[in-house]
Amino acid sequence: MRIAKAITSLTESFEKLPGIGPKSAQRLTYYLLRVPQSQLDEFSNNLTRLKKDTVLCSVCKNIAESDPCMICSDHARDHSVCLVVENPLDVIAFERSGRYKGMYHVLHGAINPLENIGPDEIFIADLLKRVESLNEIIIATNPTMEGEATAMYISKKIKELTVDGRQLAVSRLGMGIPTGADLEYADDTTLTQALEGRRTL
Amino acid sequence: MRIAKAITSLTESFEKLPGIGPKSAQRLTYYLLRVPQSQLDEFSNNLTRLKKDTVLCSVCKNIAESDPCMICSDHARDHSVCLVVENPLDVIAFERSGRYKGMYHVLHGAINPLENIGPDEIFIADLLKRVESLNEIIIATNPTMEGEATAMYISKKIKELTVDGRQLAVSRLGMGIPTGADLEYADDTTLTQALEGRRTL
Repeated sequence: MRIAKAITSLTESFEKLPGIGPKSAQRLTYYLLRVPQSQLDEFSNNLTRLKKDTVLCSVCKNIAESDPCMICSDHARDHSVCLVVENPLDVIAFERSGRYKGMYHVLHGAINPLENIGPDEIFIADLLKRVESLNEIIIATNPTMEGEATAMYISKKIKELTVDGRQLAVSRLGMGIPTGADLEYADDTTLTQALEGRRTL
Repeated sequence: MRIAKAITSLTESFEKLPGIGPKSAQRLTYYLLRVPQSQLDEFSNNLTRLKKDTVLCSVCKNIAESDPCMICSDHARDHSVCLVVENPLDVIAFERSGRYKGMYHVLHGAINPLENIGPDEIFIADLLKRVESLNEIIIATNPTMEGEATAMYISKKIKELTVDGRQLAVSRLGMGIPTGADLEYADDTTLTQALEGRRTL
């Protein structure tokens, strides 16, 4: 039996998503056959608009609606402190904890030699350009091999830049995050503890 | 922080899907921010076309591209045998096993009093209208409480229709399917065994 083209096409679209296998993709497609056309149209529209309605903030590299983003253009926040994270989802996690009132820098990944991601593939150079305007940098990459390597690399680069004796505190997120876990799943208390227990590199 | 509208909208669309929670929905959305616009457009197009390019076959109630569907209009198949299933995915599972060459009837559900699904909410009346042209009916509803109740109900109704003494074999899928499992996940061998071991009701 040949399955209708409309069904196989959508199933293939779902299969391309991470964590969705052929069976789940098929189930989702057959589920959508039972929803109103208006829900399909809305979903469809949200997909096409996703990238058109968002920009990369030229300062912090976070995904935003405007450039500079709302955080970078917020004068009520501390512009001398910068929290360095791997992904935009990590910014959301810190904002949800409500404890941090400084700036962010989104690397969009971590150094990972096995996947050919070197320092030039992520936004490290852009971070180093921002160092001059900062008093404190908190490195909040994930507590994984790649995240630790990225933290070490950034810390070394920043120290090379500040040999003139200028005061710049560089720290790494402290106790609270279990090794191997993913930052974005950490609860608010853990994130707050991690901020408070940060250690100087 | 306010997350970009384009991101929250698409996250909400994903959250409406079965088995996708808020965290997974967010992850899928942020994943899609990194794919080419062409992939988003294709996904989007597949969503809008899904229902427009499919119809319900007026004979077997399966989802198809034409009416009657390819199976119902295939003269090489046995039109005197009908396999009754709960969902279109079950038809795909039987077709994949390659053993069955008769007709199908898709109920689009099972009798479930707890969810207010009675015999009139699924395509049982349409099946009873087809009985006259059939010599054999194999009931292949899922081996769950609801599937068994549906099988019993259909079997009773068919027997009421055939009091005139006409020969009509009604059977239920046999050994091979473990109770409580879902038909569409059964492997080909299990489905073949189940077809061979069907028992008369």
